[in-house]
This record gives sequence, structure tokens and C-alpha cells, in this order.
Amino acid sequence: MNGFKFFWRTSKVIQDHPTACIALLLTTASGGSLLAISEHRPFQVAHADVGQADSKKKKVVILGTGWGGTSFLKNLNHPSYEVQVISPRNYFAFTPLLPSVTNGTVEARSVVEPIRNIAKKKRFDTQFREAECLRIDAANKKVLCRSSQDTNLGGEENFSVDYDYLIIAVGARSNTFNTPGVEENCHFLKEVEDAQRIRRTVIDCFERACIPSISEEERKRLLHFVIVGGGPTGVEFAAELHDFVTDDLASLYPSLKDHVKITLLEAADHILNMFDKRITVFAEQKFRRDGINLRTGSMVTKVTNKEITTKERATGEINSTKYGMIVWSTGIGTRPVITNFMKEIGQGNRRVLATDEWLRVEGMENVYAVGDCATINQRSVMEDITAIFSKADKNKTGKLALNDFKDVIKDICERYPQVEIHMKEKQLKGFTALLQNSQSNSKNEVIDIELFKNALSEVDTQMKNLPATAQVASQQGVYLSKCFNRMEECEANPEGPLRFRGTGRHRFHPFRYKHLGQFAPLGGEQTAAQLPGDWVSIGYSSQWLWYSVYASKQVSWRTRTLVVSDWARRFIFGRDSSRI
Amino acid sequence: MNGFKFFWRTSKVIQDHPTACIALLLTTASGGSLLAISEHRPFQVAHADVGQADSKKKKVVILGTGWGGTSFLKNLNHPSYEVQVISPRNYFAFTPLLPSVTNGTVEARSVVEPIRNIAKKKRFDTQFREAECLRIDAANKKVLCRSSQDTNLGGEENFSVDYDYLIIAVGARSNTFNTPGVEENCHFLKEVEDAQRIRRTVIDCFERACIPSISEEERKRLLHFVIVGGGPTGVEFAAELHDFVTDDLASLYPSLKDHVKITLLEAADHILNMFDKRITVFAEQKFRRDGINLRTGSMVTKVTNKEITTKERATGEINSTKYGMIVWSTGIGTRPVITNFMKEIGQGNRRVLATDEWLRVEGMENVYAVGDCATINQRSVMEDITAIFSKADKNKTGKLALNDFKDVIKDICERYPQVEIHMKEKQLKGFTALLQNSQSNSKNEVIDIELFKNALSEVDTQMKNLPATAQVASQQGVYLSKCFNRMEECEANPEGPLRFRGTGRHRFHPFRYKHLGQFAPLGGEQTAAQLPGDWVSIGYSSQWLWYSVYASKQVSWRTRTLVVSDWARRFIFGRDSSRI
Repeated sequence: MNGFKFFWRTSKVIQDHPTACIALLLTTASGGSLLAISEHRPFQVAHADVGQADSKKKKVVILGTGWGGTSFLKNLNHPSYEVQVISPRNYFAFTPLLPSVTNGTVEARSVVEPIRNIAKKKRFDTQFREAECLRIDAANKKVLCRSSQDTNLGGEENFSVDYDYLIIAVGARSNTFNTPGVEENCHFLKEVEDAQRIRRTVIDCFERACIPSISEEERKRLLHFVIVGGGPTGVEFAAELHDFVTDDLASLYPSLKDHVKITLLEAADHILNMFDKRITVFAEQKFRRDGINLRTGSMVTKVTNKEITTKERATGEINSTKYGMIVWSTGIGTRPVITNFMKEIGQGNRRVLATDEWLRVEGMENVYAVGDCATINQRSVMEDITAIFSKADKNKTGKLALNDFKDVIKDICERYPQVEIHMKEKQLKGFTALLQNSQSNSKNEVIDIELFKNALSEVDTQMKNLPATAQVASQQGVYLSKCFNRMEECEANPEGPLRFRGTGRHRFHPFRYKHLGQFAPLGGEQTAAQLPGDWVSIGYSSQWLWYSVYASKQVSWRTRTLVVSDWARRFIFGRDSSRI
Repeated sequence: MNGFKFFWRTSKVIQDHPTACIALLLTTASGGSLLAISEHRPFQVAHADVGQADSKKKKVVILGTGWGGTSFLKNLNHPSYEVQVISPRNYFAFTPLLPSVTNGTVEARSVVEPIRNIAKKKRFDTQFREAECLRIDAANKKVLCRSSQDTNLGGEENFSVDYDYLIIAVGARSNTFNTPGVEENCHFLKEVEDAQRIRRTVIDCFERACIPSISEEERKRLLHFVIVGGGPTGVEFAAELHDFVTDDLASLYPSLKDHVKITLLEAADHILNMFDKRITVFAEQKFRRDGINLRTGSMVTKVTNKEITTKERATGEINSTKYGMIVWSTGIGTRPVITNFMKEIGQGNRRVLATDEWLRVEGMENVYAVGDCATINQRSVMEDITAIFSKADKNKTGKLALNDFKDVIKDICERYPQVEIHMKEKQLKGFTALLQNSQSNSKNEVIDIELFKNALSEVDTQMKNLPATAQVASQQGVYLSKCFNRMEECEANPEGPLRFRGTGRHRFHPFRYKHLGQFAPLGGEQTAAQLPGDWVSIGYSSQWLWYSVYASKQVSWRTRTLVVSDWARRFIFGRDSSRI
């Protein structure tokens, strides 16, 4: 018995100081390679007691436990806040691995981390409410919520929560583009439950196709899997499904393997069209080689419970095909709570909630939005061109030398990132070159407002919305938490760019997205990776880069260990085909 | 890329020859201790092609993929059969670990093995149909089935399957004893889905109790967990739940920990009453020390959606208590398909399907039943006493010397196992002593039928039904497969005991259950173990025995590795509280 107690104590030591112990464990598992790239976050002492409301503390309410909300919570560490997190999911999910969950390459539980595990490490009071936000009442600074547990526990429960600062990070919903029948008959791939449901349905289709009384035609229908949308998610799911079928199911359902058909529909001319052309070409060739039925330029017009109808963009031809399962992965739409909020705050005519470059919801005090639920409404240079000019024109002469801009160049470039992108695009070295470029004909050293406008006229065409990715949401969450951590400090000493239309400086630097690259797993242990600087890598080596990056980006050591061991398990035993 | 291909080939080698490779892996994981006790089954070459019906081959249909059906399938290896397995679950579940699944100590997927993985290793054609058996039509030697996939795949699908031999291994359902409200409001713990549902409900109760608008009274209700039934499953679940709450949830829901109440209701006077008295006493004391509200002698009379009503057996007092979740684990009942079958074959007046000692359904040709769906109707000695006597009385004198029995003793003891149990109970050395014992007053060496009857009169009181455990079902499956493997051989050379009422010998030895001991995990890393020979072990060391035995008994190396790594994960990171 004493022997056992030793073990028990050891385990307690491990639970209290996991980093060192697990480092050892993972080094063994991965040959040390993962450690080099994984973030090393020292575990903090848990302060989990939920205290009473402290009137001096600012109430921060976070809506959502996705990438934006969780990275904000994880990095917020100023003790002057008390935080309430409200979300229908009591966990954070590592969504880029959802396509892997659909086929059992990775288990659902390996990609989730209870939000309370993150919350209990905070130095300030943090409470979590498993509830859905029904309405944001910005006028009264409160949010109205409804508990999301199964109703057999006693019906719906509504409550409201006050805030001083509100962080909206509710993400988006799948966009059906109002195509009839999609909502009722298609699977989406946004939540962990979706992935689990897809997994069960794939097995259901196979099992049902084994029933002896099923006709050949029906069998073919059941084993026709359709993926709508050739973006990274759709492509990865198609690739994973193909691997699942060929690696695992073919040997378990030998009589069915020739009946399986995987169709990938994309409305545009190519799949993965946000990637480099080389990746698109490689992916399309690989899919065709693998026998995946790739149909580009094909728009879905209708879905019934057994049939999907498409229209070819080029020819206008209408096709109907029977299917066993459809996964719909075409884009994102705005959640109803956000649509209603937008109406209330005068953004009703917009498609997506707009924030400024500091992630503040436009026109709102103390309401912020991160991730897929919002876009940054980047201010155009032309809108402020007079103000910028007059800021540089200290003596109000209306005419400036090139040299006179030097005090404001940094601020212009920071406030309007499109300027820098434009200069890079045109291969101009510095702002002076930009100004000179426009007036190359007349070598005039003096610039007036018209010349200035002319020089910057093309700059705003470089303004682009950020993609709706985990990377963006995560960086936004981190950025915002840093602002919150330094709120008082920056209030006293603003560090942002000049206010061209007002006086003084902005409190913070505006949010700037840093693209770290993107992966598109293509199955068969091959991945395409587009890295910063347009560096493209395709093949087996990128797959290992993918493994490394995804392992390192896990939100906790627990999920990191689980994901890595899931990969190892799949490598050794294959994927499980039990219908659970 | 070549580097990767090497890895890929390695993985293929591992998948083809897993035993050796995983031995290495598990030796590392377990320090070698598990290997010593785990069964070593060499993997066979997969013959997965489903061939056409071979008229010479006997059609064996197995209903169910539980312990009985799976162990039968796993051990059947005579090439003269073709097998169809029919079950609503396409996997085998290691049910003794279900209580661990309810709280996340072990993952659901770690305790299941796809039945097709087992089937593809067979040397004969094996097909699996994911369907429920609706009716056994013994007259026409067929079973009628209905596919059990989600109906959105195209409605119900009925089909029938012919058999030459039918193995019924459908298990039992939970028994509610017709207590009102139980079916609608209680959780059962028989299937993997039940365990997953319980897990989600526990988290639901905790999350809902965190909603600020919930009253104190309602909070207490939500966190009152009731377990009905003090058998091994109920006790283990209560213990696991207590551990989950104290080890994991207390730190995540600090404001709720004092509200949690776990009640264990048992109608008899003690819990674990099939175990040794010492275990019962220890368990009851430990539960009381742990703060589990143990109420013995308490019968449930009614359950509503929020309230459970009990009646004290001793005082007749009626109590009603509010609850958040009830887990009902009181015993088993017969499934409707078996009840109907019993009516058809003239067993309508019985409670459970009866088989003979060779596991043949009574009164049926070529229909066998194993596991919880049937009991062995052990033949009583008194029924056959005249036949036994006359078998020994070769010269038909009506009087026998003690010596004359020596030829039939072995057969008597084999055919009527109660004889041996009786002799052991009375501490009699051999059959001769049994005969002498009854006539100790008259030292007569000659035995007539009356004396013989007298000597054996108490023997039949030792007849007991086998418990409804995994161990019994598994042993029955193995026994039956061995009979099937040697069917032709034993047809020619019967090896069983003498037919006392007929001529010749029975083909096979009758089934004999060998009790290997039983565990009752009590939480806090303590387990009670009752081993053969009434050896009792309670405490931390038994917990390690439990770990070893359960790891070794896993049906595949995959589940073994998963279960062991789940334990390791729980040890290091605790249990996960995400609601998925």
C-alpha cells in the first residue's frame, strides 16, 4: 500500500508541475523534435476561487470560447479585471483538426480543452457560464443569455450579465447561401459535434450498404459522399475521407470498396483558390489520380434527402446525382445575435459586423469584436487625405517639401497599412519614393494637396479583408489582451500613431495581422504548405511540418500529448470503425 | 521524401505484424508487467473476402456482439462454417470498463473493438450485418432482422437470414421492475452510448448549477446524483463519480463542491451482497467515510422528472428527494425478441430462456444461447436417480456394492456438477464417502435404490444459476466455439459423460463455469477483489491487480494500448470535463 501511495504522490507532483515531466514524456514520443518548436508556457498557480463582485474591478465579458475568445482569455493577466466567459460550449476546440476528427485520425476529445482549465490559471476572478448569448444590449451594457443544457434539466433559463467591456468572439455560422434543402440535409463542419456526426454517418452508410436486402443502386447511392466547397476544409475532409476509405474501410468492407465514390464540388474554376497556383494544380492532379471526382465550376442549386442538383457555370447544364452524405463547407455567415446587434447599432446595411483597426466595434464604446464574427473596416487614406496633409503642413503654407513628411511617415504607414503594401507591390523604397513616383514627370520638389492626393490615389486598392481563419482570430485575441493588460499605462502614455483628424496619439498601435502561412493537407501523408514570403512546399516533408506545427499550437500539454498519441495510434493500428 | 516513405513502410510492417512491435511498445509503457499476464494471440492472415454461399458449408448465425457472441466468433476456427454476425452494434464493448467511461477515466473508444476487425482474421467467410433481430423463426430456420442505421438514410430495411446453427447472444436489458417513471427519467448503464450520455449529463448538471439565475434549492437538486442498485456496477459508478467530483470537478467548479451529494440506494440490507462479508463491510465504511449517502433497505417506488420516491423496507416510511440525475443499475430483464421466442417454443411460462448444460436451447435443434439472455437449466439428480442407479446396476440385481459405482462416478460428477459441490461443502472425500455418509448408522455395504436416493437427496440444493457476468458469457462463448470446432470429431467419438437415460455418451463435455474471481472498485485507487478459493484482497494493491487483469483481458492490442494510455493520461492530466 505504501508503494501505491508513492505512486499517487508522484502523480500529484506531475499534476502540479506538469511542464517538466511531460517534456520528458513528449521528448521520448517525438524524438525531441516537437519540443524545439512548441511554445513553452510555464504553468501558473491556480486561483480558482470565485470571489464576490469587486466594485473597483472592471467587468469584462467574453462571448465565445473559440480561437478569439480563448486566446484573449489566455493572455489577459492584469489583475484589475473580473471576467465572465459566456459560451454554449464549455471547451475550446482546436478547429483545424476537425477534418481529422471526422475520420478518426484524431479523437474528438483530443482537440478540446475545458475553458475552466484555462480560467482556473488566471490571477483574477474568472467565471464561465455555459449559455448562449441571445441579445447584446449595448445601451444598458448587458448581455441577455439562455442556458444551453438539455431542457430535461428543468426548461430554459434566461439571465443577464452586466459588463464594462464586452468582447464579442462568437464566430460565424455555416453559409448555405439560401440554397434549398441544405440546412435540412447537409452536414456542416464547424463544431466538434458536427465532426462526430459525420464520422457516425460515414459508418452508417457503409453498414447500411452491407444489408443484404439493399439494391445495387441504393448501395451506390449510400456510398456516394459529396463535399461542397473546395476551400481548405472541404479539400482536407475529402482527402481524409479518401484515406479512411482506402487505408481502413477497404479491408473491413471488401465487397463495397469499388462502390465508393467521393465527389468534390467547387463553384469557382479551381479548388484552393486562395493558395498559390502551384498548390492548386498539384492538389487537383493528386485528387484526380486518387479517383476523387473533382467538379469545378459547379454550383449547387438544390438538395433533397437523397439527391443533389448542380448547375454548371460554363454550360448552364443541370445535373442531379444521388448521394449518401453531403458535407457543406462553402463559407461563413453572420450569426443571428450579431445580425440583430448590427441593426441596433446602425450597421444594419452591412453584411458583417465592422470594427476599427483597434478591434472596437464601430460606433460603440467598450465593445470589441474578434475573429470570424467581425471584419476590420480599414480606414482609407483618401478619406483622411486632407487631414494627413495638414498634419504634415505644420506652418499651414499649403505647400510642403519632401522632407516635411518625415515626421509623419511612420504614423501614416502604421495608421494605413495599405500604404506599405502598395509600396512593396510597386517596389518603391520608402514614402519619399512613393511621392516622387507620382510626379516623375515634373521634378517638382514642392508638394501641394493635389499632388499628394495623386501620389496616394492607388493606395486604397490594396485594402483587403483578413481571411476568416483561426490564425487571424487567435492573433486578434492576443492583440486585444495585450491592449487590456496595458490599458492604464497606454492611457497615460499613448503609443499609437498620430490622430490625423484629432489631436494627440491613439492609445494603442492598431492591430496588424502577421501571416504565418497556411496548410492544405491533401491525404496520403502529403500536405501543401504556403509559408510567408510565398514559399511553397508540397509533399511528405510538409506533412511532417504540419504535424509539428499543429502539435506545437495545441492549447495545453494535455491536448498536445493526446493529439500526438492519436497520430501514433493511427500509424500503428489504423482508424477505428466502431459506430460510437 | 524518401525518409518519409521509409516511415510509411515501417508503419505497414507494424500493421501487418503488430504483435511483436506492440510488445516492444507496451513493455516500455508498462514496465513489462502486463505482458506476463496478457494472452498472446498470434495475428492471423486476413481472409476478408466475402465469398458466395458454399452449399457444403454450414451456416452459423450469431446474434449479438457482446461477450458471448464475440468470444464465440473469436475462437471459432473450423473452416467448415460460414458465419453471419447480426447485431445493432458494429463493435464489441469491454463492458466492465463502462463505469470508467461515465466519468472519463477511460475513453469510450478505448473500450470498443470493431467486430469486423475480429471477423477479417477468420479463415472462413464471415459477414457482419448491423441490424437488430426482430424475430427468431426456428421452424423455418431463419431470423428476421431490421437494419438499425439512422432512418434518414432511407427508412427501415427488413431482411431475413437463414441458418443451420443459431447462436443467440443478444444479452439482456435493464430491469426496471415496472417502477413508474424509471424508463423515462433514469439513465441505464449497459451500452457505450449510455455511458457517454451519463458523462454529458453530469457535466450538464454542473454547468447548469453555475448559471447565476438558478436558485440555491435548484442548485442542490441539480447536484444530487442518485444511484439505484448496490451491485458491482452501481457501486463502481458511485465510486468513480465521487472520484471525478473530488479529484477533478472540485477545482473547476469551486463554488459548487459543497453542494454535491451522491446517494446510493439499495433495496437489500447491504451493498455488494454477492461478495464476501468483509468486502461489503469495507465498502460500506469507505463510502460513509467518503461522504456518499448510503441508504440500504430502501426501495424505489416512483420516479418523476425531478423527484425520486423511496419506501424503507423496515419502517414502511415513504421519502421523496429531488435529484439531478439517476443511474438505474438494479438487475437485468429479458429482451422482447427472446420473450417472443420463448412463447413460440413453449418456454412462455419461464422468466429466462433455458438451455441445457451444452448451451442448447431446451427443446430446440441447433439453436444455442450464451450469456445474459439465457440460463442453464441444470438437470437435477433426483430426476434421473433411477436411471443412474440402473446404469450402475449392470447385472440388474437391484442391489449394489460400493465398488460397483466406480465405473459411473466420473460420469455422475460430470453430468451433475452439484454432486461435487455438495461433497466439497460437506467435506466428503469422494463419492464412496458420500454414499457411506448417508448410511453411517447401518454399516451396510450393499446399496439399494432407496439408500441411493437417500444419499443423494440433498445434492440438488446446490444447484445455482450462474451470475449474469461478462466472465460467464465469455467462457460460454469459448466453450461453444470449441464444441463447434470439434463437431465432426466428437460426433464420431463422443467424449461427454454417459447418457443415463439413453445409450452411449454425450458428444461433448457439458459446460462448466470456472470462477476466476471478481472485482469491485471502490474509488480512491482502492479495489476489493474476491478471488477463487474465497481469497479476499482489498485496497491499493488490488487496484493494481485490477489494472493488470483488465489490461490483459482486452480483446485486441489496440484497445489494450488505448486503455493503458487512458489510465496514464488520467494519472497525469486528470479527467476531461468538456461536454462532448
